[in-house]
Amino acid sequence: MRSDTVTRPTPGMRRAMADAEVGDDVYGEDPSVRALEEHAADLLGHEAAAFVPSGTMGNFCALRAAAPVGTEIVADTEAHIVTYELGGLAALGGVQTRTLSGLAGPLDLADVAAQIRAHSIGHNYNMIRTSVLAVENTQARAGGRVWPVERLERLRALTDDAGVVLHCDGARIWNAAVALGVPPRRLGEIFGTLSVCLSKGLGAPVGSLVVGDAAHVEQAREWRKRLGGGMRQAGVIAAAGLYALRHHLDRLAEDHRRAGELAATLADAAPGRVEPKLVETNMILVEVGDADAFVARAAERGVLVGAVSPTTLRLVTHLDVDDAGIRRAGDVLARLLATSRPTG
Amino acid sequence: MRSDTVTRPTPGMRRAMADAEVGDDVYGEDPSVRALEEHAADLLGHEAAAFVPSGTMGNFCALRAAAPVGTEIVADTEAHIVTYELGGLAALGGVQTRTLSGLAGPLDLADVAAQIRAHSIGHNYNMIRTSVLAVENTQARAGGRVWPVERLERLRALTDDAGVVLHCDGARIWNAAVALGVPPRRLGEIFGTLSVCLSKGLGAPVGSLVVGDAAHVEQAREWRKRLGGGMRQAGVIAAAGLYALRHHLDRLAEDHRRAGELAATLADAAPGRVEPKLVETNMILVEVGDADAFVARAAERGVLVGAVSPTTLRLVTHLDVDDAGIRRAGDVLARLLATSRPTG
Amino acid sequence: MRSDTVTRPTPGMRRAMADAEVGDDVYGEDPSVRALEEHAADLLGHEAAAFVPSGTMGNFCALRAAAPVGTEIVADTEAHIVTYELGGLAALGGVQTRTLSGLAGPLDLADVAAQIRAHSIGHNYNMIRTSVLAVENTQARAGGRVWPVERLERLRALTDDAGVVLHCDGARIWNAAVALGVPPRRLGEIFGTLSVCLSKGLGAPVGSLVVGDAAHVEQAREWRKRLGGGMRQAGVIAAAGLYALRHHLDRLAEDHRRAGELAATLADAAPGRVEPKLVETNMILVEVGDADAFVARAAERGVLVGAVSPTTLRLVTHLDVDDAGIRRAGDVLARLLATSRPTG
Amino acid sequence: MRSDTVTRPTPGMRRAMADAEVGDDVYGEDPSVRALEEHAADLLGHEAAAFVPSGTMGNFCALRAAAPVGTEIVADTEAHIVTYELGGLAALGGVQTRTLSGLAGPLDLADVAAQIRAHSIGHNYNMIRTSVLAVENTQARAGGRVWPVERLERLRALTDDAGVVLHCDGARIWNAAVALGVPPRRLGEIFGTLSVCLSKGLGAPVGSLVVGDAAHVEQAREWRKRLGGGMRQAGVIAAAGLYALRHHLDRLAEDHRRAGELAATLADAAPGRVEPKLVETNMILVEVGDADAFVARAAERGVLVGAVSPTTLRLVTHLDVDDAGIRRAGDVLARLLATSRPTG
Repeated sequence: MRSDTVTRPTPGMRRAMADAEVGDDVYGEDPSVRALEEHAADLLGHEAAAFVPSGTMGNFCALRAAAPVGTEIVADTEAHIVTYELGGLAALGGVQTRTLSGLAGPLDLADVAAQIRAHSIGHNYNMIRTSVLAVENTQARAGGRVWPVERLERLRALTDDAGVVLHCDGARIWNAAVALGVPPRRLGEIFGTLSVCLSKGLGAPVGSLVVGDAAHVEQAREWRKRLGGGMRQAGVIAAAGLYALRHHLDRLAEDHRRAGELAATLADAAPGRVEPKLVETNMILVEVGDADAFVARAAERGVLVGAVSPTTLRLVTHLDVDDAGIRRAGDVLARLLATSRPTG
Repeated sequence: MRSDTVTRPTPGMRRAMADAEVGDDVYGEDPSVRALEEHAADLLGHEAAAFVPSGTMGNFCALRAAAPVGTEIVADTEAHIVTYELGGLAALGGVQTRTLSGLAGPLDLADVAAQIRAHSIGHNYNMIRTSVLAVENTQARAGGRVWPVERLERLRALTDDAGVVLHCDGARIWNAAVALGVPPRRLGEIFGTLSVCLSKGLGAPVGSLVVGDAAHVEQAREWRKRLGGGMRQAGVIAAAGLYALRHHLDRLAEDHRRAGELAATLADAAPGRVEPKLVETNMILVEVGDADAFVARAAERGVLVGAVSPTTLRLVTHLDVDDAGIRRAGDVLARLLATSRPTG
Repeated sequence: MRSDTVTRPTPGMRRAMADAEVGDDVYGEDPSVRALEEHAADLLGHEAAAFVPSGTMGNFCALRAAAPVGTEIVADTEAHIVTYELGGLAALGGVQTRTLSGLAGPLDLADVAAQIRAHSIGHNYNMIRTSVLAVENTQARAGGRVWPVERLERLRALTDDAGVVLHCDGARIWNAAVALGVPPRRLGEIFGTLSVCLSKGLGAPVGSLVVGDAAHVEQAREWRKRLGGGMRQAGVIAAAGLYALRHHLDRLAEDHRRAGELAATLADAAPGRVEPKLVETNMILVEVGDADAFVARAAERGVLVGAVSPTTLRLVTHLDVDDAGIRRAGDVLARLLATSRPTG
Repeated sequence: MRSDTVTRPTPGMRRAMADAEVGDDVYGEDPSVRALEEHAADLLGHEAAAFVPSGTMGNFCALRAAAPVGTEIVADTEAHIVTYELGGLAALGGVQTRTLSGLAGPLDLADVAAQIRAHSIGHNYNMIRTSVLAVENTQARAGGRVWPVERLERLRALTDDAGVVLHCDGARIWNAAVALGVPPRRLGEIFGTLSVCLSKGLGAPVGSLVVGDAAHVEQAREWRKRLGGGMRQAGVIAAAGLYALRHHLDRLAEDHRRAGELAATLADAAPGRVEPKLVETNMILVEVGDADAFVARAAERGVLVGAVSPTTLRLVTHLDVDDAGIRRAGDVLARLLATSRPTG
């Protein structure tokens, strides 16, 4: 339960891979890749999509295609793009990040607006220009929280006014849509560009997509090529992604239900350490005294969990964790929690 | 009063320039540059210094020498290095910035500590590493506010623990020292590295310095060369800088006194728009309804002022503004303020 | 016959993929990826290897791990890394390329040595430092030519003296080894670091490897992560690569034989346009008057070929081209050649 | 005689500096800087110019304004921009360099044309695009050689056809014009953009200029600001540059005459080690057995010279070397040459 990135391909998915029709995608000739790209673009209400090997590359290509060198991307202080991508936006892309705390809330939207520096560089040589505002939905470090649709729509209006692109790191946008009970397109259309993953809750072995309008995706393809993300007969893995989008989307609701049940179990066992109301999708944050020690003790008892801070654990439900597994994990973790101490 | 960057060289300074002994500084042979570098390093309690043409280059060289590609510099959301340097740290240096609000206060230092990601990359391939924490003293966008020495010292302890370099954008560190009534060395020694300017309140025409230990300054020199900041007979301008350090340091107290008097005048004329208690050095922030319009109206009346936000003005006292000038500006601005309306 | 990148997975390879044992490779837990990496490192006589999605990424990670920002890679003017990788070394890596003509020959090795600037930057702030000398074996733009082993060994001695890393873009090193009749390790050991491909003559759908000593490969993994080349259950594609290394290495000799036969056919039909003696592996260069027009006319007749310059065609034999295919292509191309005109 | 970069300001120049009218050039308000920029642009037949602190920054800003990230600059293998600027184009600018040997000659212009890859990236995702062809006039590492005007004009036609910008590293373009007996504008107009220096033969202490059309120079100014090359009261040094352009241009002929005389002296003393016919401007290349040793021995005898390769010396005549100095240096060097041995 360390992460939903560890899921393994199902038999149906493996069959899809073995039977995939392929071509050379660098020449744009792989039919399985094209089918996946078209399906994903359509699902999210956009013109085009480009298949990439990872969410990190998806974010980079989508963002770099929208953000010229020497401009600035505004994002949450806890965003995946500034925490877990090794500084690629700056290191590889020459794009600055400026971070705000509480972008999804409680930061006031007027304060967000005041932080966007969108007047042209010509106006003031000194001041950097904001080119992109990036949100993450669901938010990984916040425990899989879902953005309220209305706040997103107001952000879109605000960025449109400023001439700034609104990007979504949608690694788990599927979970957000399922949690809200809306089709993915309802969320997808709010953004100028997205990066979405096939390899987390959806269970495909490899792959993500950049989604946006045709010109933007074309530019993202050039960056993909430069990064070395152009793959030859990528159809063998794209086929698994397409299978996942077609067969594993609805079942995310089960992951959410199981996460809710596990959160309730743990909250009962150790009140105040887990907040079940904040469990909106497939993740649970648990306050423990010493996260590293807790991870080790859980592992000894056969439950793999991960830490997001020195004192906070994150549990993730996914395709490879069934009801029996949840009960077993609940037993082990409840017992450990009852005997461990929180910080302070 | 737009900025203290507009000051012109005094006759004494011009004489120093005309008489400067020079050599080829790219070969390290300019005696005036060397004298300036040694004087500044000594003044701030460090081993070495390197002369550069601007504060932007000073910050870049100091920071890039301390921050490897793909690491992260943590700074205040309003820092000069993320607002007014056109994203150079990312664009030229491949270094990420992550910003926190209220670094100088009121953000709790425990929260600052929690935001430093200093465990080695080897420990977790995914997570970026913080290499530098950067503060600005005085803080330009906060109206020339001075950092409490004790908070700086606690930050130094905290960054030492984490193996992170504490950098000071000390464009106006001279003002901070004068306001606190301590020698510059008292502040300089707190930091691992600094960038300080000769061309603002001190009144030299051109130039800044990177200050730190010898190895760090050596690396900064390599970056200076790569940026094209290596200048040939730079002694002609270094001589002006040395003159400024020797003759214009103490007189900053006059700028501060004048700023205080002007703030009092304006607060009397328009209560609530200026907060005299926050005027610690040579800057005054004034809330106006529409900053651009106000700037234009003041200019018509012969007073040049600048805006730091759509609704906030910044007034700066400096070498070229005397008591009579302050009174004249006070009259004009007080009248305009009395007839303009603040936001909301 | 446009390229050997278009080969499709064989049934055996597809079976290997469908049956692959997988894990999360970002956590280093995918057994198929580890098996592939160990096999490849061993085959080439090195300590370690890292699986990446493409040859472009393999070259970048291997080179960037050896070349610090602001140093220089010396390579042939026609090298793949400066022609077909969209400037990634500079754009993403901040590393300069300086190119020499005739690196594989006829350029004198003393002249190569004179072009290596290896004295430390400390010695002369002005002069860039050479960190890597990169060769390509076989050379794609030269028509699959093989480097003489002795010249490579002398280059290694020369780079060792200068403290410079010798890198091999070994996208087709397997063809070089087969053509020379030596085990791949015989070539691999000459280099400090290599990038090798599984997706060209070997016929795997996706994937390349960075090969070198453990510390170097560790650094390459960090760059891979930053580029977004870390893939989750990459075992499904690594299994195909391992299958290719185990079953398709020896059969490259067939591709070479077929290329030789086709070259002879074309040289008979149009003397002077093809030089059979230069056909050492699986590629044939053909001089035509107007390459774009020729490509179109061949395509109309069912033969797909590609151009490497406005007047030069490149034909490539591979897994999907059998003897009958070669004869058919020979007939069509010979006829077209006989009726087309070379430049000048 | 190590370099013409070591010249010191003359009394007239110092007076110009002391009397300079200045303003804040970051606000575009320094009258001395503007006068210099206008004069230089006019002298070279272009719309606009921007003052920068060094030739390295001049080249970077001019080239980066013309070359987008991920494109390629083609230059001579021995160009200053790839040898002496610490890889800044790649390291700071993300622009690739590809180098050709003999760009000024004897390389055939048809071969140069074949090396320009100017078709749009859209046409072929794989292939990098050439954005700039850069020449250096005079060529520093070739001993101050002057490009034939006709060859330059043919290069301009060729780059125009390809949609590529022709840039001149004109650090010593003044020497080229004087040697050819043409006004600087005759050379300047051939190029799309130039970087020219005031601090070498012209003798100003600091400064260079980017020259080109208004839009290009505007972009160069943005890069200058990002690099930290924006200087406040830069007029004090611009005044020296303007003085140099007005008073020191014609006297370069004297430097050339002296270089010719010295070359003749040395060729008499040690035939075959100096080629007087190749001394076209203010530089002389001398073959010696061991350059470092020779430099040391000359220095002991009071003559400062520099090496451009392990076996080659470069002597430079300039403002601070008069006829008596030339005779003295000639005596010392002739004697040393007569007793030293060339390589091989």
